[in-house]
Parts: sequence; C-alpha cells; structure tokens
Amino acid sequence: MTIKLLDLFEILAAEFPAARLVGNADVLIHDLAPLEGAGPQTLSFLSHPKYSQNLAASKAGCVVVGRQAEQLAVQRGTCIVVDDPYHYFARVTQIWKKLQQSGQASSIHATACIDPSSKIGADVSVGAFTCIGPNAVIADGVNVGAHCVIGENASVGAYSRLAARVTVGDGCSMGEGCVVHSGVVIGADGFGFAPHDGRWVKIEQLGGVRIGNDVEIGANTCVDRGALQDTVIEDGVKLDNLIQIGHNVRIGAHSALAGCVGVAGSANIGAHCTIGGGAVVLGHLTLADHVHISAASVVTRSILKAGNYTGLFPIDDNTAWEKNAATLKQLHALRDRLKQVEKQLVQTLSSKEEKS
Amino acid sequence: MTIKLLDLFEILAAEFPAARLVGNADVLIHDLAPLEGAGPQTLSFLSHPKYSQNLAASKAGCVVVGRQAEQLAVQRGTCIVVDDPYHYFARVTQIWKKLQQSGQASSIHATACIDPSSKIGADVSVGAFTCIGPNAVIADGVNVGAHCVIGENASVGAYSRLAARVTVGDGCSMGEGCVVHSGVVIGADGFGFAPHDGRWVKIEQLGGVRIGNDVEIGANTCVDRGALQDTVIEDGVKLDNLIQIGHNVRIGAHSALAGCVGVAGSANIGAHCTIGGGAVVLGHLTLADHVHISAASVVTRSILKAGNYTGLFPIDDNTAWEKNAATLKQLHALRDRLKQVEKQLVQTLSSKEEKS
Amino acid sequence: MTIKLLDLFEILAAEFPAARLVGNADVLIHDLAPLEGAGPQTLSFLSHPKYSQNLAASKAGCVVVGRQAEQLAVQRGTCIVVDDPYHYFARVTQIWKKLQQSGQASSIHATACIDPSSKIGADVSVGAFTCIGPNAVIADGVNVGAHCVIGENASVGAYSRLAARVTVGDGCSMGEGCVVHSGVVIGADGFGFAPHDGRWVKIEQLGGVRIGNDVEIGANTCVDRGALQDTVIEDGVKLDNLIQIGHNVRIGAHSALAGCVGVAGSANIGAHCTIGGGAVVLGHLTLADHVHISAASVVTRSILKAGNYTGLFPIDDNTAWEKNAATLKQLHALRDRLKQVEKQLVQTLSSKEEKS
Repeated sequence: MTIKLLDLFEILAAEFPAARLVGNADVLIHDLAPLEGAGPQTLSFLSHPKYSQNLAASKAGCVVVGRQAEQLAVQRGTCIVVDDPYHYFARVTQIWKKLQQSGQASSIHATACIDPSSKIGADVSVGAFTCIGPNAVIADGVNVGAHCVIGENASVGAYSRLAARVTVGDGCSMGEGCVVHSGVVIGADGFGFAPHDGRWVKIEQLGGVRIGNDVEIGANTCVDRGALQDTVIEDGVKLDNLIQIGHNVRIGAHSALAGCVGVAGSANIGAHCTIGGGAVVLGHLTLADHVHISAASVVTRSILKAGNYTGLFPIDDNTAWEKNAATLKQLHALRDRLKQVEKQLVQTLSSKEEKS
Repeated sequence: MTIKLLDLFEILAAEFPAARLVGNADVLIHDLAPLEGAGPQTLSFLSHPKYSQNLAASKAGCVVVGRQAEQLAVQRGTCIVVDDPYHYFARVTQIWKKLQQSGQASSIHATACIDPSSKIGADVSVGAFTCIGPNAVIADGVNVGAHCVIGENASVGAYSRLAARVTVGDGCSMGEGCVVHSGVVIGADGFGFAPHDGRWVKIEQLGGVRIGNDVEIGANTCVDRGALQDTVIEDGVKLDNLIQIGHNVRIGAHSALAGCVGVAGSANIGAHCTIGGGAVVLGHLTLADHVHISAASVVTRSILKAGNYTGLFPIDDNTAWEKNAATLKQLHALRDRLKQVEKQLVQTLSSKEEKS
Repeated sequence: MTIKLLDLFEILAAEFPAARLVGNADVLIHDLAPLEGAGPQTLSFLSHPKYSQNLAASKAGCVVVGRQAEQLAVQRGTCIVVDDPYHYFARVTQIWKKLQQSGQASSIHATACIDPSSKIGADVSVGAFTCIGPNAVIADGVNVGAHCVIGENASVGAYSRLAARVTVGDGCSMGEGCVVHSGVVIGADGFGFAPHDGRWVKIEQLGGVRIGNDVEIGANTCVDRGALQDTVIEDGVKLDNLIQIGHNVRIGAHSALAGCVGVAGSANIGAHCTIGGGAVVLGHLTLADHVHISAASVVTRSILKAGNYTGLFPIDDNTAWEKNAATLKQLHALRDRLKQVEKQLVQTLSSKEEKS
C-alpha cells in the first residue's frame, strides 16, 4: 500500500489538532517500521527520548516524535510532532490496517450454518463453516471468521471482530468493538465439583459470561461461565493469549493481563490493573483498582492498596541457585540461630559491663 | 424454567432418603442462585456454617442446609435439610440442566462427515461439520458438538459429551460419562526428540491416550499420546482448562488438576491427588495417592507420602520484594557468615570462661 | 504391522553403516516398546547403560544397544549394536510410522474451501472443511488436516504436516518439513497497546510470522505476528504444547521449549537453547546460544553467557514451607541483624584484645 504522508496526516488532523507536519508532506509512505529498519518511504516513530541516537541515524521518510525531540527530528528531516507519539502511532497503525482492508465487502459465506431464529445485523460478515445458534444476536458490522461456533442465545455487539475458530458458548454476551482471536473459548464450564465419598460430583455451571465493550481476547484464552451467576469482563479489558479466567471472576474496566496468566474462580480484579505474564491469582481474592502484579508472581492474598507487587525467585546460574535454594530450606532454623547469637552476645556484653 | 419445589425434591428423594423439606413445598422455583442474590423463587444453599449471616438475610424461596443450620433455616422460611448440602446442591444443578435440555432430540447434523466404517450408537448427536474417522466407535447416547475431529480407530464411551471444537486423535479412547470442553486436544504427539549433532531427531509417538469413565477435561487442555505406550487418565479425574499432560503420564483415579497445570512426560500421579493452578510436575516423578500440591508450586522430586506440599515465593510490595530477593542471592554466604559468628562467639565465651 | 527385523535393519543400513545386527535376523517385529513390556516380537532399545538390568530381564525380540552394552546384549539374544542407540531408535520410529501410513493416497477433501487464487502443489492432502485463502501457497507433499484455516498470502513449505484445527494467519509463512499440531494459532495479533487517558489504544499488528524448516509446534501453542516486523522461528526449533510466543520474538535455530513456556514480546533467544516447562522469558531480553533454563524459572534479565540457569522456590511440606516463606519476608532485616552482630562481635573481640 502507498499513501501520501499529507493524506495520512490529514486523516488524523481532527483527532490530533496540535500535531504538526514539518518537512516534505508529499513523501509517499509504503510501510511502517521501527527506526532502525526504516527506508525513505517508511513512516517511523520515536516513542522515548532514550532512543534519540536511533533517530539521528534513521533513514525513515518521516518520523513521529514528541516535542522534546522536535529539534533533533527537524534537523534529520521530515517529521510529525505531537504530544504523545506512541498514541499517535497506534492510531496510524489502525488507519493503515483499515486502508489495507478497504474494499472488502461484508458477506455471509455459503457454507455457514446460521439458525433461522438468530438475528443478523447489517454489514455482517460470516466466514466459512461458522455455526450461529438459535436466537443468537449478531449486531451490525460484526465480522465473524471461519469455523466459529456461536451458541444459542449468545450475542455479539456491533463492530466486534472474531477471528477464525472462536467459541462463544450458549447465552454468553459480548459488547461492541471487541476483538477475539483464534482458539478463544468463551463460556466453557467453570471447574466446580462437590467432593463426595472420594469422588467429584459435578456442579453444572448455569451462569454465563458477560463481556463489555472494546475488550480484546488473545488466542486460545479461556473465559469460563459462572456457576450460578455470570463471569464478568468489563469495558476495555485486554487479555493476551493462553489466559485462564475461572468462573465468576470479575475483571474491572481497562485492566490488562499478559499471556499465560491464570485467574482462579471468583477472584475480583479491579479496574486499571495490570498482571504480568504467567502470574497466578488465587480464587476468591480481591485486587483493588490500579494494582500491578509482576510477571510470574502468585497472588495468594487480597491486595487492597494500589501499587506494584512482586513475588518471584530470582534466576541465577545453577550452582549459585542450588546453594541458595538449599539454604532457603533451613531459613527458619537460621533465623533461630541468629536469635540465639544475638542473645548470647547481649549476655556477653552485659557480663563485660558488669565486670568493668 | 419453572418447577415446583416439591417436584424437584421428589426427583432426588430416593438418592437422599434422609433429606427433609420443611415449609412451603409448593413454592415455584425458577432459578438457582447464591444466598445474597436470591429472590422468592430462587433455590439457594448454605454450604458452610460460617455463612449463616447470609442465610438469615436471604430472600431465597428455599435454602438447602445441613443439620447444624436447621434451626436457623427453619426460622427463616422454607428449607431442605440434608447431611451434605453442597453435594445435594450439586445434584440439583444436574437435575436443573437436564430439565432445561429435555426435549432436545438427538440428531446427526447433515454436514457432519462420518466415515461409513465408523460405528455410531443409538441416540447419538453429532454437530455441524464434525468429522468422525474410519473405524471410530461412538457409543450410545454420546453428544458430539460441532466442529469436532474424531480420528481413525478412536472411541468415545456411552453418554460422554464433547463440546464444539474437540480433537480426539487416531486410536485414542475415552470411557463413559466423560465431559470434554472446547478446544481440547487429545492425542497430539508427545514432545520426544533424540539429540543428534546439535539437531533434534523426532521420535514418532506411536502410543495412544486412554481415558477412563467420568473424566472431565477443560477447555484448550492437551493430553499427549504416548511415545510407545499409552498416556493414561483414570476414572473420575477432573482436569481444568489449559492444562498440559505430557506423553506417558498416568493420572490416578479421582485426582483433580486446576487450570494451567503442566505435567511433564512419564510423571506418575496417584489417585485422589489435587494440584493447584499453574503448578508444574516435572517428568518421570511419582506422586503417591492423596498428595496435594499448592497452586504455582513446582514438583522437582517424587513425593511418596500423602500430604500437602508447597513451594512458591510469597508476594510483597515491590520494594520489600526487591530487598529480600537481592539478599536471597547471598543467602548461602549469609549462612557461612552466621556460622563464623557462632564460632567466634563460642571462642569468646570459652576464653572468658578460661579467664574467669 | 509386521516386518522382518532384517528388512527394517536394511532400510537404515545406508544411514548407519556401522550398525551391526547380531542374532536372529528373521525375527518378525510387530511392535516397538520399552524393555519392560517387550515380548518376543518387540523391537526395544537401551538408551543408557544404567538400565542394563532391564536389558538382561527383557523378553524383547531384539534390542538396540550401544557398544558398551554389546556383550550383555549378545548374551541375552538378538540385538542391533550402534553408536547412538537413542538416535537409531528415533529413526526406527519414523520408519515405522511411514510404513504404517504407506498406501494413504494424497487427496483434497470435497468439502475443503480452497480459494482459486491459491497455489496447491503436487501430492497435497487437504482435510475436510479446511479453508485456504487467496494467494496462499501450499507446496508439494504438504498434508493439511481437517478444519484448518490458512490465511491470505500464507505459505506452507514442502512436506509439512498440519494436524486438524490449525490456524495460519494472513501472510504468515512456514518452511519445509514442519509439523504443526491441533489447535495451534500462528499469526494472531501481538499484545500491543498504547496507554492513553487510562485506556488502551490498539496498535494494529502489521508484521507477520516467519517459521523456518523442520520446526515442530505443539498443540494449542500460539505464535503471535509482529507489530511492524516479523516474529521469527528459525530452523529446527521444537515448541511443545501450550506455549506463548509474543510478537517480534526471535527463537534461534534448534532451540527447544517445553510445555507452557511463555516468551514475551521482542525477546531474542539464541540457537541451541533449551527452556524447561512453565518457564517465563520477559520481553526485550537476549539469551545467548546454548543457554539452558530450568523448568518454571523466570528470566528477568538478559543472559549473555552459555550455561544452565535456574530460579524456583524449592517445594516442601506445607509446614516447613510456611515457616521458611514467612522468614523470607524478613530476610533483608535478618541480614541487617547479622551485620550488627558481626560488628558487635568485632568490637567485643577488639576490646578484649585491648584489655589483654
């Protein structure tokens, strides 16, 4: 794809009134790339002043920069100066993708299996072999990929995009503008069993899943249906790949969870939280708003105060790790020995004082 | 759905002969819910005496309680008194789901691709676009969802339910009454390679997977086929979502594994074990029966004695964690310093004694 | 399947010129199995001298052994003596599988949805309901399972095998001889958002995924597309099940990652590395060639020196763990107390010396 820089700039002009284009507005842009790999038809960006060296050396046709890098950028060549270059560039990627895809008409594939009782909105696309169940509601502008299975009474809000091979279980709902990637399973049964005589008696999971607007869900992530009430993912939540969300979890608005996170049943996560990759949140815990959990940490108690929390064993070469790990298993005993030493020392000192 | 309380009670009367219905047997139940959200047509339950406060305040049409809460429950209103209210309620959820689904006739979808050499039992349902391979055996009453792929010579036992998008590999077998959720992959190749000249030479995985009766497998969980012999999941095992079961693992009867657990190849897990979410069991280890592993713990050695085991770094605010983690890397040195101090102290004391 | 031992031996003779068959070359082999379960028609192997006891007791029709076990093996019965019995046996499993599958003609299933603009090579098999997008290239001898979705401009190299239910996203490419298991998602969006006013603004992921030759990818593993440039998996890499590979990651040739590993965005992993199950590699880090990370360890910094690295909390019975974990939270304070004790002790000793 090729677009004149000025045309791209003008698409975003209303949204970023303070943005300024300095230099050659006629340069033709044919790709977006980082500063290092950029060529004379590349639009690039400087997200952080610490990469200024890369800026000076870059051959990009145009670079999006913040005000503090303006002087350097102007010396180098064509640039767009904005308050938040990372935000601006994010919007550029969206425009870029939209332009690439323009001309793709919406269509319902002939092989799709759509129950006649379902309601399909205007400008909806449905891919090959996708099944849409009885009384499901697919709102205007939704794009459902191939091989999806959308259950009875499920609903998908306007302009949401489902990639290929997504499952939306019976009675589960999703808001507007959501993006759901391949392999996602929404509304499988939560893990609920009553122990009885050494066996597990299944508790049928009768709740659903309610997903807000502008939620993104990464590939092969699972969001289980609630036991009796619903599992809830609020507006603007971003879930990466291979995440497990247990039954009756609630995730507050605009929280973001990185890949491989596990959230056990009935955990209540606040708004604007972030959880690093591979972290685990145990069941029935509460996290306040603006709690940030580091990657691979295990949340074993409720965290009611905003802030950054971590719990992971530092990595080391095997020899050092082995020594420290072995000692760790005697840590409590070491503490007792230290106490003992302190006591003896106090006695020694006091007996000395007595003597002197 | 609506059902008279007495009708529901009578369905379970033979199974729970000691259960008693006290109060208004004619109340119409139209949902099941926790005590807090319950209304006058809700059937609810009190699983644990510590929630007695919720019981008194609840507006539920009927509450299932244990004997110790009987007095309080009777004062409040209609109740069912049983020995194990959680078990009773689990069975109620099952009845509820069955009643909701009654009237759904079994059927083979016209688009399903069923090899003529396969054997399909009576009252089997097969969803849209599902493929059933040569010589596969689907027993009576099985329900296979849409978009499943069941391989050559695979078998599914009576009354098992496969959700949409399940893969059962060639030659793999599953017992009766199993529940398998979307995205599950049974019988992918185990991870087996012989290192040779800096490369990995594939060891074709020629074993299968054998799954017992009443096993439940959560969404996107994987159970690999064995290298030469079979991977075995015994009766009554419950696997949550996104679990990895390596080749030649054996999981003993009635064990339960929570989400995101990884079990490496040839691990041998006993019966009645539980493994918390995100835990890892290394390969070729043995866990005795009734071993319970906490969430996110890593089992690095065989555990031959029943009991509870844990190994996870406690979470803390970042500042505290950083200090402790940094010190942890010197733990072995600290121990040596403590030893040194103890020695010096002994010398000091003994020299004092000599002097005195 | 049954094959005469000599015939099997001769298939591999050119590749292993130093291999010798000692004993009854006419024995009919009908299965491959470990030493313990082997019968008179089983071909088995001894991978390591420490299992020599099993060798002596085995009833296998033939055992593949290394030179150091030759004497023992010959005394027992028929054997094949080679330099590297594990490598030899790996090749036997491959021959075995190929023989089992011989006679399966390649075919395009009638229900497959193949865009007329795609290029399909010779001897390609395509399973039921598989979708192949516009301008996709499927090279000679490729085997695509049922229910796969191969995107626009995607390409699959010669003789690669895709199991059922694999997604290959638009514009993603895979080399020759790859094996991809069910549920794999190649080319879902990377997890990229610009924070803005407490919300996350999506950065459209415009890069692709480039996968080399002889790569194997386990069930339900995800490899995300790059943000602007490509995510790269080099030749001979082996990925187990349920692995997350973030956007713009590079994994060097012949590295192997075990199940449930998470690699965050832009991590750069060298060649010939191994990463144990459940380990996490944080974003933007570099691992040198020949770095080996233990299971469940978290790589929080670049590792520029080949070697073995570990970071995991040792598992213990709950009581011991609780004591040690509680003390761990005071570790920094303990260190300060130890310092204090050391100082006091020095003072005590020096004051004693002064006195004496």
